Amino acid sequence: MNFASDNWAGAAPRVLEAVARVNEGAMRAYGGDEVTARVKARLCDVFERDLSVFLVVTGTAANALSLATLAQSWRSVLCHAEAHVVDVECGATEFYSGGAKLVGLPGVGGKVPLEAVARHLAVPRRVPHQMIPAALSLTQSTELGTVYSVDEIGALAELAHAHGLGVHLDGARFANALVRLGATPAEMTWRAGVDILSFGGTKNGCIAAEAVIVFDAERAGHIAERRMRGGHLLSKSRFVAAQLESYLAADHWLDLAAHANAAAARLAAGLARLGIRIPLAVEANQIFPILPAGVDAALRAAGAAFHPWTTASLPEGTAIGEDEVLVRLVTSFATRDEEVDRFLAVAAQGMREVNAV
Amino acid sequence: MNFASDNWAGAAPRVLEAVARVNEGAMRAYGGDEVTARVKARLCDVFERDLSVFLVVTGTAANALSLATLAQSWRSVLCHAEAHVVDVECGATEFYSGGAKLVGLPGVGGKVPLEAVARHLAVPRRVPHQMIPAALSLTQSTELGTVYSVDEIGALAELAHAHGLGVHLDGARFANALVRLGATPAEMTWRAGVDILSFGGTKNGCIAAEAVIVFDAERAGHIAERRMRGGHLLSKSRFVAAQLESYLAADHWLDLAAHANAAAARLAAGLARLGIRIPLAVEANQIFPILPAGVDAALRAAGAAFHPWTTASLPEGTAIGEDEVLVRLVTSFATRDEEVDRFLAVAAQGMREVNAV
Amino acid sequence: MNFASDNWAGAAPRVLEAVARVNEGAMRAYGGDEVTARVKARLCDVFERDLSVFLVVTGTAANALSLATLAQSWRSVLCHAEAHVVDVECGATEFYSGGAKLVGLPGVGGKVPLEAVARHLAVPRRVPHQMIPAALSLTQSTELGTVYSVDEIGALAELAHAHGLGVHLDGARFANALVRLGATPAEMTWRAGVDILSFGGTKNGCIAAEAVIVFDAERAGHIAERRMRGGHLLSKSRFVAAQLESYLAADHWLDLAAHANAAAARLAAGLARLGIRIPLAVEANQIFPILPAGVDAALRAAGAAFHPWTTASLPEGTAIGEDEVLVRLVTSFATRDEEVDRFLAVAAQGMREVNAV
Amino acid sequence: MNFASDNWAGAAPRVLEAVARVNEGAMRAYGGDEVTARVKARLCDVFERDLSVFLVVTGTAANALSLATLAQSWRSVLCHAEAHVVDVECGATEFYSGGAKLVGLPGVGGKVPLEAVARHLAVPRRVPHQMIPAALSLTQSTELGTVYSVDEIGALAELAHAHGLGVHLDGARFANALVRLGATPAEMTWRAGVDILSFGGTKNGCIAAEAVIVFDAERAGHIAERRMRGGHLLSKSRFVAAQLESYLAADHWLDLAAHANAAAARLAAGLARLGIRIPLAVEANQIFPILPAGVDAALRAAGAAFHPWTTASLPEGTAIGEDEVLVRLVTSFATRDEEVDRFLAVAAQGMREVNAV
Repeated sequence: MNFASDNWAGAAPRVLEAVARVNEGAMRAYGGDEVTARVKARLCDVFERDLSVFLVVTGTAANALSLATLAQSWRSVLCHAEAHVVDVECGATEFYSGGAKLVGLPGVGGKVPLEAVARHLAVPRRVPHQMIPAALSLTQSTELGTVYSVDEIGALAELAHAHGLGVHLDGARFANALVRLGATPAEMTWRAGVDILSFGGTKNGCIAAEAVIVFDAERAGHIAERRMRGGHLLSKSRFVAAQLESYLAADHWLDLAAHANAAAARLAAGLARLGIRIPLAVEANQIFPILPAGVDAALRAAGAAFHPWTTASLPEGTAIGEDEVLVRLVTSFATRDEEVDRFLAVAAQGMREVNAV
Repeated sequence: MNFASDNWAGAAPRVLEAVARVNEGAMRAYGGDEVTARVKARLCDVFERDLSVFLVVTGTAANALSLATLAQSWRSVLCHAEAHVVDVECGATEFYSGGAKLVGLPGVGGKVPLEAVARHLAVPRRVPHQMIPAALSLTQSTELGTVYSVDEIGALAELAHAHGLGVHLDGARFANALVRLGATPAEMTWRAGVDILSFGGTKNGCIAAEAVIVFDAERAGHIAERRMRGGHLLSKSRFVAAQLESYLAADHWLDLAAHANAAAARLAAGLARLGIRIPLAVEANQIFPILPAGVDAALRAAGAAFHPWTTASLPEGTAIGEDEVLVRLVTSFATRDEEVDRFLAVAAQGMREVNAV
Repeated sequence: MNFASDNWAGAAPRVLEAVARVNEGAMRAYGGDEVTARVKARLCDVFERDLSVFLVVTGTAANALSLATLAQSWRSVLCHAEAHVVDVECGATEFYSGGAKLVGLPGVGGKVPLEAVARHLAVPRRVPHQMIPAALSLTQSTELGTVYSVDEIGALAELAHAHGLGVHLDGARFANALVRLGATPAEMTWRAGVDILSFGGTKNGCIAAEAVIVFDAERAGHIAERRMRGGHLLSKSRFVAAQLESYLAADHWLDLAAHANAAAARLAAGLARLGIRIPLAVEANQIFPILPAGVDAALRAAGAAFHPWTTASLPEGTAIGEDEVLVRLVTSFATRDEEVDRFLAVAAQGMREVNAV
Repeated sequence: MNFASDNWAGAAPRVLEAVARVNEGAMRAYGGDEVTARVKARLCDVFERDLSVFLVVTGTAANALSLATLAQSWRSVLCHAEAHVVDVECGATEFYSGGAKLVGLPGVGGKVPLEAVARHLAVPRRVPHQMIPAALSLTQSTELGTVYSVDEIGALAELAHAHGLGVHLDGARFANALVRLGATPAEMTWRAGVDILSFGGTKNGCIAAEAVIVFDAERAGHIAERRMRGGHLLSKSRFVAAQLESYLAADHWLDLAAHANAAAARLAAGLARLGIRIPLAVEANQIFPILPAGVDAALRAAGAAFHPWTTASLPEGTAIGEDEVLVRLVTSFATRDEEVDRFLAVAAQGMREVNAV
């Protein structure tokens, strides 16, 4: 019963098969191979436009390269206070940008509020004393399992652009948001104003495959050089490309994400039926329920893996009792219905015991 | 006929099988999995001592993390003038170290001469005006296909240590050197004075698997944090670990390297028989012959892939005529005898035509 | 009527005379001169202990060198949300540290609240994903004209040390705080737990003279090299040293600060008498009154120079009306009573007109 | 008898007087003052064109800011192998640029040979693997006391521009070269192709005053922000500006340099008369004679201050015997004829004793 992370899952079988298949024969190294070229072409199709693609193997690398491209060392980047880039990447953006400042804005459900951005941008700042905002980074779906609507992204991007900021989307869970919205990749990104995208494949079934996608080639800057000196240009690039090729083929990526989202919905519905509170909308593949301590203990005793969570992004007024614990449950393409149901059965038994006290 | 690079090869079948095999079930992410733990234990066995291991996916990352650990921003690193770290990593070491200076020393065959190091270290330098050497980086086997003897490494390391420098070994082609010397991994590294090793798997049959190995845990510094902020801690770390596990199992890595070296020897012997000059000893899996232009053209016409080469590391007096071209030929675990023989047959025909003129 | 900044003042006559006097003859460069040595000895006297001193010419340089010494690139630094280091130094600390993160904590009057630090430190953080706090930076006197008591510094430092953090004091207005408290330099710094001090001279009568003072030589790390590569080791160092020598001689620095503080007190008292609200205690040489717009206009028309101010550090409930403006008034060693009185006279006339409406 | 460095001299009296004179009254801080504006205007006159000026207090800061502007982190900068920027600034350029590589080219007399630049630029380099040259940095007068002719600068700049490189001139001893050549500032800089100049005042009579001068405003990039975060924007900027204003007034700077050069010429002529060899042309204010050890000892015993020197830039065939020592003698605006004559008298006596043996 893995609900700890979509990173704890392995890879989707088709992705593994593609990796095995691409092994045959010699190919040019460092991205000069035909598979890398095909993936780029495929991404152009997927996003319905020409674009620049830079393959990497971690979301942290994709994010840091993206933000270093948008923000010079003396500029700042607005993001949610609990965004991956500011919270758990150990300063990767600061490192790649040479010291740009990440400004974390609080917001319910992990979403950057339009008003918070507007307020921050309304403050006059003096050059060269102060660090001027250069970029807005959004996470879709968010770290708290919610999803920006296309209109929300559009409004945030419009505001950002009006102040000269570039817009980055951390799409570590891009597909989960996309299938939730039923939008096209184009609609959820460049048509809504996104300039640079960290396109994630790893959490949704790849071994290790992410892409920095730059919609406006003029903004692609020197990502090639930054990636190289960051040590992120793989010599046998074909193996990363093959992952993404199979991932994108025949909408496999969307199916994988739809599966993960459905598992989350099934799990959330089950928990709700048990009377367990879930203070945030479950819109992708993450659920943040408030478990009675006894239920938490029963689940762990039964072998369920999941993380306790701390966040300042719950709706105002959400109370977590002394005998309760907020946890994060993550589903993935690999989550089986039996896992969900077993989790729910244990939780149900736990709830009965809690209520019996 | 791929003689362009060992990076153009795919992966060894056993490595691919291990990747497929490790896919089953959920595992802790970010290196907390059991496979990663097993690889570390295996490396302790291989090197006959306790050590710290940090898995990454490129040699550039391994080198930069290693050298950033040994050299603070205001220090310098001595290496060969044509070392990978100084020549083709786009400043990765400068990036990860925050600006340390790489000092390239010339030397025949890609080897750093002991006298050159001694001479450099004998120059008095003033703190804080001048950058003081902090590390010596050697490449084994070298970029020019030669191999340091264990004694040569020992003498260089002794000199380096006597001046307070740490010693790094870039082992992108570690196995090729090891089987050439018939030495143990311990003998070629820490017993000879190496402090930090970039242990390469990719060029010798892995998909993308390298390890920073620190022999003295006290020197491991903050590699964990540096790797994280460099974006090099893979979430699904098991897939990198599984590559190395199968690579190291049952001496597979040594067999792969022995095959590559044998292919190089067969190729070199064949070229020599044709009267083609090879100005440097062929001690691992790279050959740098001087081809008559006609032979070069004939080989390319026949579909052979290989790079022309420029180097200042040939023995003094090596003359390359106007109608000649220095090229690099690289063999790998995947090189087949037929490829070698076909290359030689085309070269032989080319030589006949050249000589007939 | 300069109340814009203590930076708008020139230098104290004695400081200028010392600069002229030190000009005679040749002296060793780069800090090897006897004047620099004498200043160091004098600072040891002033602080009643052995210490390391690094002269620089800006507070920004002193702060950045100090914090880069305490916090590695992957660590964070706690400070007030409106501290100079985080607000108006354009990322100098990020630059010198290679990307350390400044965490701004809100607090009334520009003071870092003990509880806010405790709360921040109580959050568990995971290495290597998260940036671990390495230092606490306090500003004394604060950016909002208040002064930490010795006990407050002691309590904050004790908490910081208990969590392994180093403690930095930004003493751009060190003397103003010192004379306010009537404490000794030792009491306000290392005896209270301060590890590294940016000792400011410029704002209080020097031309450009600051010192990084490290109380525990073991923590002085590589400031010499960092200063050099930052371009902050002046060749004719004697001229900086001479400023500080005269500044420190015969308690001149304390007299200068006492003058500035007295001017501020006189000004604050006068404004209060006029019914102008001053929401923060005036404890050093800065005053933040809320001026009716008409008074603000009248003062500017009369030639007074001062800045409008924006801050989130006013006491809760402080209301600034639509026809009011918060401003900052700064006095200095050079402020003359006539300036204060003229300012007050114009303000009084302005108040009469405002009240007459 | 100071011949150790022009940095050991104090400041020219007129410069000191200007500093005292500018002290009166309040002025805007951070370069918003009228003196800074006047200096900029004066520099436009001096250089006969519009230009951008950024005042700093060290040559290292000026150089590093200049080169960081010309070369991104992943680019390289060509300079002489013994240039100040590469040899004695502790990696300032690497620091400010975020890791750009300085490539030191050997050349007699400290001059970068045109052929060496051409040879370096003729090597094909691959993006993103290799660091591509972005700038050429020349030092005028050179570290070895020689002076590039205007034509030499022009030819080097033309070659650099033809390859897309920017041209930087390290003018720490700019005035000494200028008076030697009898050229105008415009002729020796932008008319010859220089893009950015480190204009030095300190060594030639200022306390601490240098300027980054950017001839083409489009290339001024973000020097303002870089200077700020480097801690090099002085709050009381007027005091730096006043130094340069008096320095530039009525050609005072040229007179000071002419004096230094004349002292060097007098010294060189005297040494030559004694039969002491001077292997490099004395074209500015530095002399590199080969002293018999006995003469060296006699001079030191008599209180002369000067540095022994090590260089690889002497003309081929220059032999320094076992009983000889190469030294550097530097004159300055403050060198008195009596000092020179006394030095020569001691040297003469020393030569007699040496010859008597």
